Amino acid sequence: MSGFLLGVLGGMGPLATVDLLQKIIEETPARRDQEHAPVVAWSVPQIADRQRALAGTGPSPLPDLLPALAQLNRAGASHILIPCNTAHFWYPQLAEASAAPIVHIADATVASLTQGAVARVGLIATQGTLDAGLFQQRFADMGIATLEPLPQEMTDWFVPGCYAVKRGELRRGGELLSLLAQALIARGAERLVLACTEVPPALAAIDSPLQQLSIDPTRALAQAAVRLWVAYRDGAGAVSL
Amino acid sequence: MSGFLLGVLGGMGPLATVDLLQKIIEETPARRDQEHAPVVAWSVPQIADRQRALAGTGPSPLPDLLPALAQLNRAGASHILIPCNTAHFWYPQLAEASAAPIVHIADATVASLTQGAVARVGLIATQGTLDAGLFQQRFADMGIATLEPLPQEMTDWFVPGCYAVKRGELRRGGELLSLLAQALIARGAERLVLACTEVPPALAAIDSPLQQLSIDPTRALAQAAVRLWVAYRDGAGAVSL
Repeated sequence: MSGFLLGVLGGMGPLATVDLLQKIIEETPARRDQEHAPVVAWSVPQIADRQRALAGTGPSPLPDLLPALAQLNRAGASHILIPCNTAHFWYPQLAEASAAPIVHIADATVASLTQGAVARVGLIATQGTLDAGLFQQRFADMGIATLEPLPQEMTDWFVPGCYAVKRGELRRGGELLSLLAQALIARGAERLVLACTEVPPALAAIDSPLQQLSIDPTRALAQAAVRLWVAYRDGAGAVSL
Repeated sequence: MSGFLLGVLGGMGPLATVDLLQKIIEETPARRDQEHAPVVAWSVPQIADRQRALAGTGPSPLPDLLPALAQLNRAGASHILIPCNTAHFWYPQLAEASAAPIVHIADATVASLTQGAVARVGLIATQGTLDAGLFQQRFADMGIATLEPLPQEMTDWFVPGCYAVKRGELRRGGELLSLLAQALIARGAERLVLACTEVPPALAAIDSPLQQLSIDPTRALAQAAVRLWVAYRDGAGAVSL
């Protein structure tokens, strides 16, 4: 299997990494172990906080991310996935440093949307992801307007909800984040893009009905990875153990 | 963090690997990402079928496992975990080939049992794991008798249940495997050891009440890994990002 290996640059946080691995399995048409995608996951969470770095209150995570990326390349990864939306702020530097191409989570998300199917999406993301415009420009190119959280909603609901998930308090996180989700729907969002990897597991933990209106970039990234794997697997006919 | 890195020799199957990673997170006392254990997971499921190899109907997985183990050692793993009970049949050869020590899943399971608390356990495992006696001798050393499934129960319930999980049919797998679990309880087992990594997710998928009587070696392995991590983390005071 030396030709294909998904490399996951993870640990931001560890739960988001597990969530991506789980969704890759769920999205793969397979009848037995050997038909599933080969994956190497580097989930070393000792990485400087991405939100604090972008807020100017902490060091950059880039010096932690580059050696991790080098490990994945050395292990033979043919494609890199990063289950952390905020970390995509450093996408240009990471892509430059990686021999294996990095699948951009926002490209994968856009690929899962149908042109014309929706006019306004609500974007739930870290301040860093919002400021970087990772999603908004891609949505605008499809004629989709983006509704962002208000500063007070970020302070009261998003930030404490996100860090609750990182502490393992998924239900608490889900309650806070669903308040933000409801507010965006109330202001006119037809769909929600859950562009922080802590959010989908949190809404799942409280079985939120808003999940039905939500687009999960982690699942979109998994689907993009599975498309690559199935094309390789079925094209090469390489899985025959 | 060069001193500590959990290496997961996974992919047998991929879901069992995700299950172990999830349980490592659940078992870790942590308030933020950086306090979680660093993990590198090699989940390349293109490994010869372990059950067939031990039944004499397929090739040995050892030629697939040794290069994977070498990758984990090269990546700097300080401890190796194998989320597959059956693969522990090859534990002696793997331990011999690995610079990093391999935590044995049956040792971790025994460490989670209290001496004298139980007289008879039912063992749900592949024929290979049963034949290898990975668990029975350790239980006997603690004065615990082991009840094994009957041949017909293996054929009718265990094997199709296990492969249903590998196909992604968790509920179907859970229904079949819970029939086996009930039969062992009916024959006098006080507790069940779910010594095949497909079984705990399957019983969880159908919310089986038998989970309360069950010991999950995957969780025991996660707990053993977390004890190692917390001792390192809190002893070295090394996590301060």
